[in-house]
Amino acid sequence: MNPESNPSAAASRPSHSSVTRELARYAAQSRYSDLPDNVKVEASRAFLNWMGCALGGCLEPAVTIAAAMVAELGGQSQASVIGHDQRTDVASAAFVNCISSSVQAFDDAHLATVTHPSGPVGAALLAYSENHATSGEDFLHAFALGIEVQCRLSNMLVLQPSNLNVGFYVTGLTGPIGVAVAVGNLLRLDEQRMNWAIGLAASQASGFRATHGTMTAHFRPGHAARCGVWAAMLAERGFTGDDQALEADKGFIDVYSSNADPSHALDGLGQHFELLSNNYKPYPCGIVIHASLDACLDVYRRAGADAAPVTCTLHVHPLALKLTGVRTPRTPLESHVSLYHWAAASLVNGAAGIAEMRQECIDNPEVASLRQRIEAIGDAALDRDEAIVEVNFADGRTLRSHVKNVGARRMTDDELDAKFYAQAILVLPQGNAARLKTLCRNLASLKDVGREIPAAWQRSKQ
Amino acid sequence: MNPESNPSAAASRPSHSSVTRELARYAAQSRYSDLPDNVKVEASRAFLNWMGCALGGCLEPAVTIAAAMVAELGGQSQASVIGHDQRTDVASAAFVNCISSSVQAFDDAHLATVTHPSGPVGAALLAYSENHATSGEDFLHAFALGIEVQCRLSNMLVLQPSNLNVGFYVTGLTGPIGVAVAVGNLLRLDEQRMNWAIGLAASQASGFRATHGTMTAHFRPGHAARCGVWAAMLAERGFTGDDQALEADKGFIDVYSSNADPSHALDGLGQHFELLSNNYKPYPCGIVIHASLDACLDVYRRAGADAAPVTCTLHVHPLALKLTGVRTPRTPLESHVSLYHWAAASLVNGAAGIAEMRQECIDNPEVASLRQRIEAIGDAALDRDEAIVEVNFADGRTLRSHVKNVGARRMTDDELDAKFYAQAILVLPQGNAARLKTLCRNLASLKDVGREIPAAWQRSKQ
Repeated sequence: MNPESNPSAAASRPSHSSVTRELARYAAQSRYSDLPDNVKVEASRAFLNWMGCALGGCLEPAVTIAAAMVAELGGQSQASVIGHDQRTDVASAAFVNCISSSVQAFDDAHLATVTHPSGPVGAALLAYSENHATSGEDFLHAFALGIEVQCRLSNMLVLQPSNLNVGFYVTGLTGPIGVAVAVGNLLRLDEQRMNWAIGLAASQASGFRATHGTMTAHFRPGHAARCGVWAAMLAERGFTGDDQALEADKGFIDVYSSNADPSHALDGLGQHFELLSNNYKPYPCGIVIHASLDACLDVYRRAGADAAPVTCTLHVHPLALKLTGVRTPRTPLESHVSLYHWAAASLVNGAAGIAEMRQECIDNPEVASLRQRIEAIGDAALDRDEAIVEVNFADGRTLRSHVKNVGARRMTDDELDAKFYAQAILVLPQGNAARLKTLCRNLASLKDVGREIPAAWQRSKQ
Repeated sequence: MNPESNPSAAASRPSHSSVTRELARYAAQSRYSDLPDNVKVEASRAFLNWMGCALGGCLEPAVTIAAAMVAELGGQSQASVIGHDQRTDVASAAFVNCISSSVQAFDDAHLATVTHPSGPVGAALLAYSENHATSGEDFLHAFALGIEVQCRLSNMLVLQPSNLNVGFYVTGLTGPIGVAVAVGNLLRLDEQRMNWAIGLAASQASGFRATHGTMTAHFRPGHAARCGVWAAMLAERGFTGDDQALEADKGFIDVYSSNADPSHALDGLGQHFELLSNNYKPYPCGIVIHASLDACLDVYRRAGADAAPVTCTLHVHPLALKLTGVRTPRTPLESHVSLYHWAAASLVNGAAGIAEMRQECIDNPEVASLRQRIEAIGDAALDRDEAIVEVNFADGRTLRSHVKNVGARRMTDDELDAKFYAQAILVLPQGNAARLKTLCRNLASLKDVGREIPAAWQRSKQ
């Protein structure tokens, strides 16, 4: 990715001084047939995962409040609020449904940038498709495109030699742009208008990590979805912006990470896909906790269910402590950023699922007590998907587990199906969950996504 | 303002480690009777100025596009889109009406931070008051409160020892918070919910200056208005956030300006009012151009209308060049950030009003030619409201003007009235403009702002 390291590649590379225009051109021209088969498959899997998360989270309090605010403000009856007997405009539906998909911290994550790629784009496109007939191929392509642009811009802001403040919430910075190009592609924006849409979306970049553990944490991706929809809609009508909004002096890159390298956004565009590095979360908590959970569950299995953990030491990448260092979570939302809670809960329950996120588990005296006897140590020599766990048991045993490369492990189709069902049946009868799963798996073959997908969940209510 | 410089003041000061809570407490408790008389008067003048700008700008293309997008998405019939035969929800009306008040760059400016205080707050409160009966006293107080909090937080981000990147659009960072506390005060949020509203608004802080000169530049304050309304509405319903969203690690101050000094936000809260330092613009362009315009118009008057300027040298604060250095504007929007255009236009026309912002003046060959013969030199020894202009005329004369302390000059009531009329009569008959002016001047005495103000402009259509 370093331009100096490969002069011949540099010669054929698009100019980095025109990153806005290069992305706009790509986003305006790209079509389903341009996607490699493995990208088509992975995008479909990502949407299934998104749909399950949106169903699983749609009755959480943060969603109910957001839906009530949207109802008070109103909006044309253009799209569904998932899980609620409510319709609203495309932008507002995107907002609420994205909160649903995010609120259990169970969605997906692009480990290199700790962004959540599917949420804003999936919610915006589903809402859009309910209001504008959209084929499965066009939908799946736009979904892949939005994820790709979001992840690439996140790489640009986060990867070396970036100087982005780690406190910025990267999904909030790049999510609106991913949504804008995805919706813009379906609106068939030309290159100039796509360029303005990118600038308008970048102008709405927002969010910081201090709100993690509260409802506001999940407002942020919902807001990104809504902001991206507006950007595309305004640009469609000719609302002008700066043609170099990303790279200009006093522009997006300048203010967020002046050292950002646009190579990360542009190199191999249309050939290399960051979407293939996206992880569907097996555990409903911050992705930087996952390596520790794999290790804790490994220890649990080897120790046996009757073994009583007394103390535990975690060695983790420093980012895990920085982002998920809450020692004593008070609520399910705070548990998402508590490395200590998940280590304790997994060692007590031998599992790390939705049950371990609930208030009952947070208040479980055994879990609460073990949380205080865990020591977590940041170690820069470890990767962020690597952890070393050492547990002392009451019977005198000490078990150790060292896991690495957790990010390279992909959930299998069967695992994804099981995850989807567990979430979908919280609000749908099993038969309808099955039908929805089949539709998501065959997304590219649908004639009209915005009719067929909602029909599956609406029919299920009867 | 330096805490070290006055230990006894420091002892009685609120703790800077709780700036979010201190602001929330103040915003929740403050009432009209707490305002000094001069603040009441100045807030009323600021609203008159805002109202005129909203009327003057409401037919500009950026507004028409924004109104069309809002119409497509819909919304409850809660508030008026000024100048358009359209009603929509409070948040969307705030969005469009704020764009109207901003789009001619004629609104107001807090010179120390180059923020535009009245736009987001004025638009949000007027829209809110159309949907919730609001007395003139409550309205005027909330307006002053929102401006005050926005300006104080802007000071915190911008004044020494800040390290805020000058590319950030400060109104976009602090405007949502000003709106949230203003609307939150009318909603009678308690301290905890006000605290969450501040955090939710801060989470939506956005915008950079590269978009200056385009429609997106005016999207940004409109967006701030909308974001602030949501923040207050969500917090009212119990949508939770981080209690230290501003000062927390990975919070607002951390990501935007880690060197920011919260003294600037808190010291003298409720006693010293930044609102009194707000400038209503006599010229429709960036505030950092205004000193040069005073000097050019002085030279024009002394030279006489027949004198032909040949070359011109401007010495200005470096920020003027950084923010308004466009040499050759192509559109009225670009003229807002062209020091060269305004110097040339004022020297040719002997005026610097709406006519000098129009395409005809931008394309005027005499103005276009003189623009290219102007040299502008940044000089850090000058204040940002100071300029030295030297003009060589065809008759051999060289005239020089040195103006300073432009920021200290306040428009008189008569000047404000004249500015209001010139804008209002673009869309209203003169008699109705007069009636609206009287209402704005007597804002505190109104029983129901959201009925009486719109009635004045609506009646005028008949």
